[in-house]
Amino acid sequence: MVTAPANSTEPRASAKGADVVISVDAMGGDSGAATVVSGIAHSADKNPAIRFIVHGPEAELKRLIGRKRGLAERCDIRHAEGVVRMDDKPSQVVRNAQGTSMWSAIESVREGEATVAVSCGNTGALMALSMIRLRKLPGVNRPAIACLWPSRNPSGFNVMLDVGADVKAEAQDLVQYAMMGASYARNGLDIPHPRIGLLNVGTEEHKGRAELRTAHEMMGQAATTGNFDYIGFVEGGDLPSARVDVVVTDGFTGNIALKTGEGTAKLVGDFLKQAFNNSIMSKFAALLAMTSLKRLQKRIDPRRVNGGVFLGLNGTVVKSHGSADATGVSAAIRLAFQLAQSGFQERLAARVAQGAALPVPGDGGATPAGQQGQS
Amino acid sequence: MVTAPANSTEPRASAKGADVVISVDAMGGDSGAATVVSGIAHSADKNPAIRFIVHGPEAELKRLIGRKRGLAERCDIRHAEGVVRMDDKPSQVVRNAQGTSMWSAIESVREGEATVAVSCGNTGALMALSMIRLRKLPGVNRPAIACLWPSRNPSGFNVMLDVGADVKAEAQDLVQYAMMGASYARNGLDIPHPRIGLLNVGTEEHKGRAELRTAHEMMGQAATTGNFDYIGFVEGGDLPSARVDVVVTDGFTGNIALKTGEGTAKLVGDFLKQAFNNSIMSKFAALLAMTSLKRLQKRIDPRRVNGGVFLGLNGTVVKSHGSADATGVSAAIRLAFQLAQSGFQERLAARVAQGAALPVPGDGGATPAGQQGQS
Repeated sequence: MVTAPANSTEPRASAKGADVVISVDAMGGDSGAATVVSGIAHSADKNPAIRFIVHGPEAELKRLIGRKRGLAERCDIRHAEGVVRMDDKPSQVVRNAQGTSMWSAIESVREGEATVAVSCGNTGALMALSMIRLRKLPGVNRPAIACLWPSRNPSGFNVMLDVGADVKAEAQDLVQYAMMGASYARNGLDIPHPRIGLLNVGTEEHKGRAELRTAHEMMGQAATTGNFDYIGFVEGGDLPSARVDVVVTDGFTGNIALKTGEGTAKLVGDFLKQAFNNSIMSKFAALLAMTSLKRLQKRIDPRRVNGGVFLGLNGTVVKSHGSADATGVSAAIRLAFQLAQSGFQERLAARVAQGAALPVPGDGGATPAGQQGQS
Repeated sequence: MVTAPANSTEPRASAKGADVVISVDAMGGDSGAATVVSGIAHSADKNPAIRFIVHGPEAELKRLIGRKRGLAERCDIRHAEGVVRMDDKPSQVVRNAQGTSMWSAIESVREGEATVAVSCGNTGALMALSMIRLRKLPGVNRPAIACLWPSRNPSGFNVMLDVGADVKAEAQDLVQYAMMGASYARNGLDIPHPRIGLLNVGTEEHKGRAELRTAHEMMGQAATTGNFDYIGFVEGGDLPSARVDVVVTDGFTGNIALKTGEGTAKLVGDFLKQAFNNSIMSKFAALLAMTSLKRLQKRIDPRRVNGGVFLGLNGTVVKSHGSADATGVSAAIRLAFQLAQSGFQERLAARVAQGAALPVPGDGGATPAGQQGQS
């Protein structure tokens, strides 16, 4: 029996009274099925309210799952021979994906057997297959991928989207990202009234590209319907800031920012390691500071922020990092569980439907009123 | 008497046999004229081959410069009452800038009294004034701002451009950025044959926006003329990489990446400080590791990478960080000196003129041959 978290003020929309079922693609990541099954086992230990549908070669999965005590009873195995490789081109995958574990994992969500799918596979292929099999939510023009960003906020994270579903975004798409991102922050991070910022090269109104200035104008309107605070333009330096919860941008810029942030954190981490290896004294110091350094590492550990979420489809898909280890896979499953349990998908769909009724600036259309809620 | 560096294989184009003159805007930064004059004094101490033209309120500058031993003989003061503020809009500045220290600093380069101008002021205003007074180099469509990025390369830095001169860039502009960035890396960082990468959301040829794929095609051609190696698409994580020297992107993306990188480094640094303040033991460890940590700090210190360079104008302008302290100002002056001494401006102009003769793909035009050199 799943109980709603203490800070919830209303009944959850789904998964009440039943276990949450997560569909997991066991193949396609860099480290293979054994790692994914270890992640599943870790999640199963921590959370008695999850069941799994696991997709991949039956014999191998049976053996791996059989080794973990009590896991077999909580897993349905779906046999799938084929594997989508990390270097397969999405356009080719789309033609030949039937029978792969990735296809099968999405199919379980499509057929309503599972609430959320998790895969460590090829991002482009996963998005292409998800688009084709789950289809876009009515009213959504461009789906988006949302990621978590280590931040100075109490939750420890901010949300950024889109980080690479589409290299383009018009003003209307950006407004829709804001709606979807707000819904994700509410249901995934328990932030009731998220603060949204629009990523730009400066905070003044005249800055940036034309579509950003149009989106900036439209955001005020969308904020009421979307139940968020629009704080205006933010800059790259604000991504980890405590003054914003969700940063909206196009998929090109978001992907560059995400990888730049990861690359910079890794550079500083490597320089830090070199600094501590510099002398006997610094090595001794590192030993003394071990606990504190481990805490630091945990705060910026990419495995903890593991899980890009595909938003705007008829079903939720969590993309785990291709190189995720068992801890990373387990983090992605925890996120999938949180979203499934909160009824995120239904709430997001309702919110998008409201947003689709929003007038475009200059249309003079009436605003739908009284539509605020907690979705 | 300025002597060419040991690794130079040909006579330098300018400043031979005479002191290099740098024009410095003493006002407009966050920390005032005293900080700028301290930076000037520091540079003067380190390098006997620089002279300065310093722009700002005469009485104040006279007093500040008079306090530093031997500095007055190496500085010409140009009186300027007005100051361009950090929050002035570039469009307004352009109308009212005459008589400001920023205007006056650019004027010294325009009139050939100084080789390079340095300012800590408002970036947008500085670019707008530089464009109006110095004008674009013949053949340049969009000027660019290049920054230095801490990297794993032996020099410790990579170059990225554009980081915010213009929010847009067509394929031809990106190719021109590659030519200008290569010239900057050669003359500013002493890298004879720089490796150029084009920033994208993936390294495969089909990735990214249309203008990036066109630029990708054109780069091979430009590489011969521009005397650089084109290594193809790079991702955000490659910005500090040792496999590239110069990363080319549009000013919107570059600005977001730059500020994201700075913000991430600051976040990790703050988390590190918190980690070391966590317990008596970790504080003691920090004390032991002090020397190593200081070395780390130096490697990622934004003051060391202080100095965005405006490329593509009839004159070189170095933009120092608005919040730069004396060390930062001095770093910007050192960069200005290096560029002035290497004859960068003339070499860049020659290179751009060659590049302007390059055919656009599909034109079938002949390639200018035999134009490689060290500019």
